[in-house]
Amino acid sequence: MTVEELVKEPASWLDGSGPMSSVVLSSRVRLARNLKAYSFTNRSQDSELAKILDQFSRVVKESTFLRKGMLVHIGKLKKLERDFLVERHLISPDLAKGDKNQGLYVGDREAVSVMINEEDHIRLQAMRSGLQLREAWQIVDRIDDELSKHMDYAFSDQYGYLTACPTNVGTGLRASVLIHLPALVLTKDINEILQGIGQVGLAVRGFYGEGTEVLGNLFQMSNRTTLGRSEEDIVDDIEQATRKIIDYEENARKTLLTDARPQIEDKIWRAFGILKTARVLSSQELMSLISAVRLGVGLKMIQSISIASLNHLIMLLQPAHLQKWFNKKMDAGERDIRRAELVREKLTTLSGYAEDDGQPRQGGSLR
Amino acid sequence: MTVEELVKEPASWLDGSGPMSSVVLSSRVRLARNLKAYSFTNRSQDSELAKILDQFSRVVKESTFLRKGMLVHIGKLKKLERDFLVERHLISPDLAKGDKNQGLYVGDREAVSVMINEEDHIRLQAMRSGLQLREAWQIVDRIDDELSKHMDYAFSDQYGYLTACPTNVGTGLRASVLIHLPALVLTKDINEILQGIGQVGLAVRGFYGEGTEVLGNLFQMSNRTTLGRSEEDIVDDIEQATRKIIDYEENARKTLLTDARPQIEDKIWRAFGILKTARVLSSQELMSLISAVRLGVGLKMIQSISIASLNHLIMLLQPAHLQKWFNKKMDAGERDIRRAELVREKLTTLSGYAEDDGQPRQGGSLR
Repeated sequence: MTVEELVKEPASWLDGSGPMSSVVLSSRVRLARNLKAYSFTNRSQDSELAKILDQFSRVVKESTFLRKGMLVHIGKLKKLERDFLVERHLISPDLAKGDKNQGLYVGDREAVSVMINEEDHIRLQAMRSGLQLREAWQIVDRIDDELSKHMDYAFSDQYGYLTACPTNVGTGLRASVLIHLPALVLTKDINEILQGIGQVGLAVRGFYGEGTEVLGNLFQMSNRTTLGRSEEDIVDDIEQATRKIIDYEENARKTLLTDARPQIEDKIWRAFGILKTARVLSSQELMSLISAVRLGVGLKMIQSISIASLNHLIMLLQPAHLQKWFNKKMDAGERDIRRAELVREKLTTLSGYAEDDGQPRQGGSLR
Repeated sequence: MTVEELVKEPASWLDGSGPMSSVVLSSRVRLARNLKAYSFTNRSQDSELAKILDQFSRVVKESTFLRKGMLVHIGKLKKLERDFLVERHLISPDLAKGDKNQGLYVGDREAVSVMINEEDHIRLQAMRSGLQLREAWQIVDRIDDELSKHMDYAFSDQYGYLTACPTNVGTGLRASVLIHLPALVLTKDINEILQGIGQVGLAVRGFYGEGTEVLGNLFQMSNRTTLGRSEEDIVDDIEQATRKIIDYEENARKTLLTDARPQIEDKIWRAFGILKTARVLSSQELMSLISAVRLGVGLKMIQSISIASLNHLIMLLQPAHLQKWFNKKMDAGERDIRRAELVREKLTTLSGYAEDDGQPRQGGSLR
């Protein structure tokens, strides 16, 4: 497997097959771990980081679960490839800046990945389609068990797993869902909901994680504390909170249809029309149009495109992805043109006809 | 012929067959005439107006040119029918308010029409597709010759034809073109052009004539004075000025394509996409979308729809037209929904497939 191959193959967690996929894009559980023998990354020499990376690479070869993946040395990647991996939710923006011995492990179809020498020595994550936090937890738990046999973790009987940042001490676990809340945004109930989420100890972040912007009404919701509760309880909390928010979102969708059906249909169909015809599309507008179409698919207004295809488009049409797809460095202006071109091509293939000439085409799937 | 029948049959002057139709919608020449035996309409008793209307109706029956049309008594029309006739450019907003003996004559496919007892006793107009001012002038001239044999016009050897408003004294002629200038609006050159037009003694008006708003980048350009020059000279002036403006517009289109092709394509195709998918469309937005699509057809980007169809849509989707089409009184909210419905239906028929399901449809023309 290579970084290049990721471009053409959508990640498994985007395939829309999981429960509640019309509202929840994906579930993610990650564990932060550190090796007892080394300082935390912010204090360690690059030679230490090299040893950690080396040790991890040996563990991977012996692992039942990780054997099939690839290990990438971040320092060897170009800027565009790093940006690509951030867009792919495989590495953090921080790791993308890495100029030391930092690494990324990517498992089969990106269901599992590990950042090595980011804030912590090991950041192990599992991603699943839809609302599958428990399943994601079980996966990382199993891999963590195996890794712990080969690596000596920094662990305190009093505090649990020790991490570079105190907010991760304890379980080292962060569970999050990427959730699509277009109706709550339209009814303007979203702020109240977000406040409520904050009050029960959960955090809401943007599309690319902490400190990033919300795009296309996609919210990342995760636990804030990792200490004093079992992993299962933390995961259950997020799962419960997510189910409540799904209920709110679904009620908001019903309300919108009852109170303003023509306006909602208008918003959704126009978005679809614009996606099929635009010649210039910014990332931000694209996300907002796909958000509307995704709502339309959720409401069963639009039948000719699947949630999976929309998820894949969200991924594929990001700036670095686009450049990898067309295999060409492009400035924002050129990207906006190519983005519109690619989305037209994809939607034409999917819905079986082109906008320009009214000629039916061969159908096809996005993959 | 009845007012009802006009709803289904587009006016001949919208058929896009005339010269320069991609820029000029239509050419119009009208003559103002008054009968010597009666006061001007603003001073005359309703009994006098009744006599004028009666005399005109008798003349129509004997006329070679007007025999085939219909004569409508404005006072007998409902509000909606009056609005419909204003939208159709057959009567002025002023005449629509008429509660006295006012009339409208409409000839075959609306090529010729006469307002009776508007500001002047007789307002005779001919409308032609594209830039055909001379042809329109020849038509009204011929009819005017015939009418003058049956009616004694108020005429002064010194001033020419006498009219209620001094601006019409002389020839009583107003020649105008309805001209589509989207590129000059986009390049922002339009204000300079309009100033120039003003300086050579021409007036620019909105879509429904004097004191109305410009919609969809459609400008009505006409002569301001009617005195001291021959009819042919006045018509030639407007024709010359129009040709110059067409040149400016065509140059602006070329500039736009050279300097900002993707943005122009984007604007045009999005407009087409929105027209095909919107569920709510105001009059104003519709006009602006059709303006962009019309530009796209002019630039040969869009091939699947004709100028004629777009002209017909502009007419058909106006508020009173919509209500006549659906045979139902509707408030603005309902109209916006029905407008979107009708435009989708028309564009689906025209371009051979629907947006919703990707199924090809029978082709068809708008008429």
